[in-house]
Amino acid sequence: MADHLNCDLTSLTPLQLFEKVTEQGEKVRALKAGKAPKDEIDAAVRMLLSLKQSYKIATGQDYQAGLPPRDLVLINNSTTKEEDEDFVDPWTVQTSNAKGVDYDKLIVRFGSSKIDTDLINRIERAIGQKPHRFLRRGIFFSHRDMDQILNAYENKKSFYLYTGRGPSSQAMHVGHLIPFIFTKWLQEVFDVPLVIQLTDDEKYLWKDLTTEKAYEYAKENARDIIACGFDVNKTFIFSDLDYLGTSTGFYRNIVKVQKHVTFNQVKGIFGFTDSDCIGKISFPAIQAAPSFSSSFPQIFNGKENIQCLIPCAIDQDPYFRMTRDVAPRIGQPKPALLHSIFFPALQGAQTKMSASDPNSSIFLTDTPKQIKTKINKHAFSGGRDTIEEHRKYGGNCDVDVSFMYLTFFLEDDDKLERLKQAYTSGELLTGELKKVLIETLQPLIAAHQERRKQVTDEVVKQFMTPRKLAFEF
Amino acid sequence: MADHLNCDLTSLTPLQLFEKVTEQGEKVRALKAGKAPKDEIDAAVRMLLSLKQSYKIATGQDYQAGLPPRDLVLINNSTTKEEDEDFVDPWTVQTSNAKGVDYDKLIVRFGSSKIDTDLINRIERAIGQKPHRFLRRGIFFSHRDMDQILNAYENKKSFYLYTGRGPSSQAMHVGHLIPFIFTKWLQEVFDVPLVIQLTDDEKYLWKDLTTEKAYEYAKENARDIIACGFDVNKTFIFSDLDYLGTSTGFYRNIVKVQKHVTFNQVKGIFGFTDSDCIGKISFPAIQAAPSFSSSFPQIFNGKENIQCLIPCAIDQDPYFRMTRDVAPRIGQPKPALLHSIFFPALQGAQTKMSASDPNSSIFLTDTPKQIKTKINKHAFSGGRDTIEEHRKYGGNCDVDVSFMYLTFFLEDDDKLERLKQAYTSGELLTGELKKVLIETLQPLIAAHQERRKQVTDEVVKQFMTPRKLAFEF
Repeated sequence: MADHLNCDLTSLTPLQLFEKVTEQGEKVRALKAGKAPKDEIDAAVRMLLSLKQSYKIATGQDYQAGLPPRDLVLINNSTTKEEDEDFVDPWTVQTSNAKGVDYDKLIVRFGSSKIDTDLINRIERAIGQKPHRFLRRGIFFSHRDMDQILNAYENKKSFYLYTGRGPSSQAMHVGHLIPFIFTKWLQEVFDVPLVIQLTDDEKYLWKDLTTEKAYEYAKENARDIIACGFDVNKTFIFSDLDYLGTSTGFYRNIVKVQKHVTFNQVKGIFGFTDSDCIGKISFPAIQAAPSFSSSFPQIFNGKENIQCLIPCAIDQDPYFRMTRDVAPRIGQPKPALLHSIFFPALQGAQTKMSASDPNSSIFLTDTPKQIKTKINKHAFSGGRDTIEEHRKYGGNCDVDVSFMYLTFFLEDDDKLERLKQAYTSGELLTGELKKVLIETLQPLIAAHQERRKQVTDEVVKQFMTPRKLAFEF
Repeated sequence: MADHLNCDLTSLTPLQLFEKVTEQGEKVRALKAGKAPKDEIDAAVRMLLSLKQSYKIATGQDYQAGLPPRDLVLINNSTTKEEDEDFVDPWTVQTSNAKGVDYDKLIVRFGSSKIDTDLINRIERAIGQKPHRFLRRGIFFSHRDMDQILNAYENKKSFYLYTGRGPSSQAMHVGHLIPFIFTKWLQEVFDVPLVIQLTDDEKYLWKDLTTEKAYEYAKENARDIIACGFDVNKTFIFSDLDYLGTSTGFYRNIVKVQKHVTFNQVKGIFGFTDSDCIGKISFPAIQAAPSFSSSFPQIFNGKENIQCLIPCAIDQDPYFRMTRDVAPRIGQPKPALLHSIFFPALQGAQTKMSASDPNSSIFLTDTPKQIKTKINKHAFSGGRDTIEEHRKYGGNCDVDVSFMYLTFFLEDDDKLERLKQAYTSGELLTGELKKVLIETLQPLIAAHQERRKQVTDEVVKQFMTPRKLAFEF
């Protein structure tokens, strides 16, 4: 179908193609907003990717929403049809490659820097500890200005951590834990304040939700986040709907960002159109503002220039590219970033785990039995079709979702390496690999559920109350 | 020059003309934003009006920003060149007519209702008092749903008043007092709560100002507003920069409005373009939100559906047309409105008094001598060129700025009528009419300055503190 489509499209001018891509992007968004059936959305996304590819072939450039084609010089003669079919924005992650998104290309496209061995070694020296498995295994793979954070840390200058979550439903899945597990580790090794934004206003704007419901989800999600083990004396969790109305600093920073970003810019970065509501259009400023310490006068004693470090999945980078662009123009330091790869869906790394598709997700509320059933039934296998073939040719860890999950959750490097070798050689069967994953995840999720039970309403309230933390500024 | 221009423009298609008007509108805004010399701005505005006229001749329809020409049927065959050159939006008021804007046409264009004798009589019956001179003299000339407010009042149901000001500079001029003088009267006769919004965030977004400076202006302007004699127990004055960060209800209403208004809509209503910052684009929601009582939980005890009445100059109507459009979709009552005409510049009613042009304005800080000098030197006269001619033919009150100001500020109806007859007949000379105005304004402004001195920082703080007022809900 894609070929047929490309065939038809060759007669179009680059501008006509550009318009077709824009149109299709809007269609995808509309289908998602209207909660259309999954296969309908998937088909529309495939069409979008295919159109983007045609656009790239015709112009030699990546499609950028809001930026019609101008310079038609072919900048990349080696572009072939198979390449560069990844689509990544804050709402959609899609690739045709079973290994997942090509993250090296994403680094080039986004203009960030790779977290290389030198940087990992430097972090190890700075903190005097073994780096987190997410760093050792390239799960946090990209950064912006992490060297400046380390300079500051080595010079005893303070910084703070900022991460967040869009509370779209009560149930969080294991993939949602990744930034929080890593942020918790960063907070412990660097001993710095942490702010966690729950963008309930964003969810109200994007979804068919009341503000009350969105705020309720925020509080429910806070419970799961707290259950990761954060220290109430060092952590402030806030709902936008709540905190905006209780902070003297937050709105001022929002309006400052809003003054320095045009509709043309957010159109280019986020693909907004003239039919989008003005809430969506101005929302990026609300995700930007916590990057500036003056948004939290109660924590930083009104100090303006405390450096911020943001651990997040790479799809959130557009918000912070925008923030870093604005920062110097409003006299603020640019936030530094650490980017993670996506947590793959059970069905395979072509897309990320999504709470709106229960079959793609292992929820933090799942029972041991549900976990076992979902993994056995849905986890995409890199194994062979028959036991005989598997023994003979071995499995493929690069596309095997159970193995991918183990790289996220199995702490023991040696055991992970042994599993990889055994699976690749054919010694370990898919069912056996799945069993290891099940036995890894079951106690982990059970322990999370246990900790979550301890998180009372009172504790949630404590975390969400604006207050001084255990740091002097 | 206008003729020459029209001649050139006849070869253009309606769409090309539309684009020329849009372009020129942006140029005018840019010149104003860049504080270009007055004559340069005036020339650009004249060009804009002329282009709009050409557009209207070509299409038979009024130019509407963001709405390119579609239906080209001539809807008004009687359109002639002289007609309909008024330009009114929240930032610009301009007409070629020395009598000022044609307000009857504005009522038709905006779709509001005329405040007629029946309505004035009904108000008189409801309050049991003589209506304010602003009503008697057509200074508040247009309304939306004022009959519903009277229904509510007659049925002992409460409502509240909402008005506001954009604090762009420390000095307010006499024209700025009009909505406050009238609002104070409304509050007294109806005995209802009043909220006054100071849009310091708007001024930060539109002008070359820091947030600190904008907030300072807000507090300074609050002082002048308080000096109009408002009752601290019945009135809440708030700066957006401040109140947004201290109210649990305000931001929720803002985000609700923002969800229900698209960029296309604000483009059509306010003429925003893709190059405008996202702060401007989303700002209309911030002026809309105080129309809903849930923005003030401290005053209305969390009650959601208290009806709102907004007295304002007609140029603010676009904000509230938008608000009224959104209200039912977020389950809120539509605010009612009372619209005033503009307060004319000293130089004549072609434009409104503007604080950014000191020669067009009588400031609340002016000394008796300054008032006298400005009126004698700048107030546009409807008198004749020589005393002989004046005695013979009489003066023209319809274009005489001194007479217009007296209709705003001279309470005595009989005296005003006598002055009109004497001036029209030629019995009263321009200098004598100006003397009456000077003697009316000098004590009025001196008294204002005296009251203003009594407004301490402590009083300003009281008015600006979110709190319960002297009403039960």
